[in-house]
Amino acid sequence: MALVVQKYGGSSLESADRIKRVAERIVETRKAGNDVVVVCSAMGDTTDELIELAQQVNPAPPERELDMLLTAGERISNALVAMAVANLGAEARSFSGSQAGVITTSAHQNARIIDVTPGRVQEALKQGQIVFVAGFQGVSQDTKDITTLGRGGSDTTAVAVAAAMNADVCEIYTDVDGVYTADPRIVSNAKHLDRITYEEMLEMAATGAKVLHLRAVEYARRYGVPLHVRSSYSAKPGTLVSGSVEDLSVEQAMITGVSHDRSEAKVTVRGVPDDKGVAGRIFRVVADAEIDIDMVLQNVSGSASGRTDITFTVARSNGKQAVAELEKIKDEVGFEEVVYDDEVGKVSLVGAGMRSHPGVTATFCEALSDAGVNIEIINTSEIRISVLIREAQLEKAVAALHEAFDLGGTEEAIVYAGSGR
Amino acid sequence: MALVVQKYGGSSLESADRIKRVAERIVETRKAGNDVVVVCSAMGDTTDELIELAQQVNPAPPERELDMLLTAGERISNALVAMAVANLGAEARSFSGSQAGVITTSAHQNARIIDVTPGRVQEALKQGQIVFVAGFQGVSQDTKDITTLGRGGSDTTAVAVAAAMNADVCEIYTDVDGVYTADPRIVSNAKHLDRITYEEMLEMAATGAKVLHLRAVEYARRYGVPLHVRSSYSAKPGTLVSGSVEDLSVEQAMITGVSHDRSEAKVTVRGVPDDKGVAGRIFRVVADAEIDIDMVLQNVSGSASGRTDITFTVARSNGKQAVAELEKIKDEVGFEEVVYDDEVGKVSLVGAGMRSHPGVTATFCEALSDAGVNIEIINTSEIRISVLIREAQLEKAVAALHEAFDLGGTEEAIVYAGSGR
Repeated sequence: MALVVQKYGGSSLESADRIKRVAERIVETRKAGNDVVVVCSAMGDTTDELIELAQQVNPAPPERELDMLLTAGERISNALVAMAVANLGAEARSFSGSQAGVITTSAHQNARIIDVTPGRVQEALKQGQIVFVAGFQGVSQDTKDITTLGRGGSDTTAVAVAAAMNADVCEIYTDVDGVYTADPRIVSNAKHLDRITYEEMLEMAATGAKVLHLRAVEYARRYGVPLHVRSSYSAKPGTLVSGSVEDLSVEQAMITGVSHDRSEAKVTVRGVPDDKGVAGRIFRVVADAEIDIDMVLQNVSGSASGRTDITFTVARSNGKQAVAELEKIKDEVGFEEVVYDDEVGKVSLVGAGMRSHPGVTATFCEALSDAGVNIEIINTSEIRISVLIREAQLEKAVAALHEAFDLGGTEEAIVYAGSGR
Repeated sequence: MALVVQKYGGSSLESADRIKRVAERIVETRKAGNDVVVVCSAMGDTTDELIELAQQVNPAPPERELDMLLTAGERISNALVAMAVANLGAEARSFSGSQAGVITTSAHQNARIIDVTPGRVQEALKQGQIVFVAGFQGVSQDTKDITTLGRGGSDTTAVAVAAAMNADVCEIYTDVDGVYTADPRIVSNAKHLDRITYEEMLEMAATGAKVLHLRAVEYARRYGVPLHVRSSYSAKPGTLVSGSVEDLSVEQAMITGVSHDRSEAKVTVRGVPDDKGVAGRIFRVVADAEIDIDMVLQNVSGSASGRTDITFTVARSNGKQAVAELEKIKDEVGFEEVVYDDEVGKVSLVGAGMRSHPGVTATFCEALSDAGVNIEIINTSEIRISVLIREAQLEKAVAALHEAFDLGGTEEAIVYAGSGR
């Protein structure tokens, strides 16, 4: 008997009918002889609706109270799916994150899981129950307050519960039937991937592939939890995320796929005095505002004017704040101006194969050049190349790279409504 | 500095605007120098909407899961009001029933409070916080599962928290500004009551006055918690529920008011063999189905035919089930038929004064007779007379009794939209 942890996303639960279909799949898994633990996200747009209500009574709601509010969403969906499962004659028991022993830091809205103590979950499994754990939420170790894990938190809950219980697999059910070599809405012959290593999945997720959340993949890699990405709406085999690139033979190591991201903006600080410590000062002020920097343009310093430009990317949602923070130190640092540009896009090529094939970067740049795409920033890891380009050229760039590395399949990819959320 | 517990009902919280008004009142109470603990019901129709969702996935949802589902409603409203209070510059902290130490039996959907251990509430008060406790919910002492207290549970939560913390007063905010001598929608000169004893309030609540829930009044009497019924929408003084009829002087003891109830149905078991134990058998089968019997018609037994009728009332919502249970024992007991009648109403006169004024029953019956109202069942306590009549004559009966006992005031009563929920 295997222990299977299943996670269902909000769009798979957005109506009573969808909840009933999810319940059928859960009961089938149980009837196939598995112990089953289910983690549900909030139904459809519940979280956004609750945030809107909060905004109406307080434009800057206290984060502790926001967590108390938002966790109601997962309690609702969890209890409803448990009821639907009970309606099919199976025994079901739902637990809040706190009841399931999901212990976190006290960083409201963005708590990290410290430990999972699933005593009650194990007890219920022993009694033959299908167990439900509310996703996205936990309880603070220090304050005993209710916390949330941030967006994508339900995936993380599922992986953390799977790790703590030594589950055989953590199945992530979503709108699409797995990971593709590119977004099928852009590249019609994008190929389905049956398997992908944790590292490749991390790079894909970090560079825009929406199917899995970065934190959940990191957690899965750390604890060696096999992740299985599957569609809520089909019986297709999905994509298995497991194993390390280190264990791949040269023959197995290939180019995995092309990902893209429209969520970043480019910030250029012009006319920065070319002194020691100035770049550090600029990045520090951004970091102190808790804004992550992604790509940085490596300028050649030491120009005749004694001034240089510093260019980097941040999430568009943080763009205005980053600019405001920089304006505050303009006089102190003595730079000329801050230029903000959100008409950029990022395209990335990911694959363990590029470690053993030195020509990949050249082919990458040639393909973009042939397509008339200009590279503004380039950034690489051992198994990834990312470039910042004009957003208007993003789809063209994805298609050109997919073609240049011969990633296409023969089958037409199926695109579901609402995929890529 | 006084400790004030305030409870707000769902219609007072049905929109962001109403929540903001409630928040203002809470902050005013705090600014007046009081410690404040707030108990909120779920917003507007949230509970009914959640029940409907549950029905869509399971026509008979497991009660444990239903409790997990429904408690989300009070968490939402509680957190939102806390946010609205924070928006006014006050410090607010919300707790779930479990976090606030509301310990109950494990009877899902109808749990009873065993104890309240408000350690976290007290700690937060000490830190100068306005504290919110989610109403209607608790945690089972035995199973640690989330429970609900049944309809009216938020009133009970407020009273229980007030009792455990030795609060100076428990204010129940609702649509109306207190208790009246009759429903102002029926009797236009119904008089507002400034004070009423626990016993009189219990009799009024038990016989149809909707302003307070019976269980909450019972709890308040047992622990001596002064209850103050007030309107969420006005600054009027409301009605104070406190003290015992035992402590009233003859001069103070008066007729309190007239209440009415349309929620009952009459069940008549015809042609019952006039044997010892048969009546007990009939009432037992109803009780075993957990159906409460209210009024019973005292028949004269020992008729020539050796058969008699047994008539009683139950809640209309239980009516069909009561009849079905009785049909099951028809052959065993040997009665002739069960007749179900839901076109009945109950009108009651309540007042400590009837203990010292023997003519009350006579005046009561004469008033109804003069109004052409026929009495079907009569039932009395020391401070109450109730009669079952035709529902169509209910309003006429209320007006006639109100007039006969000279209960009217000179001021026109104010009726709010949505009152009498």
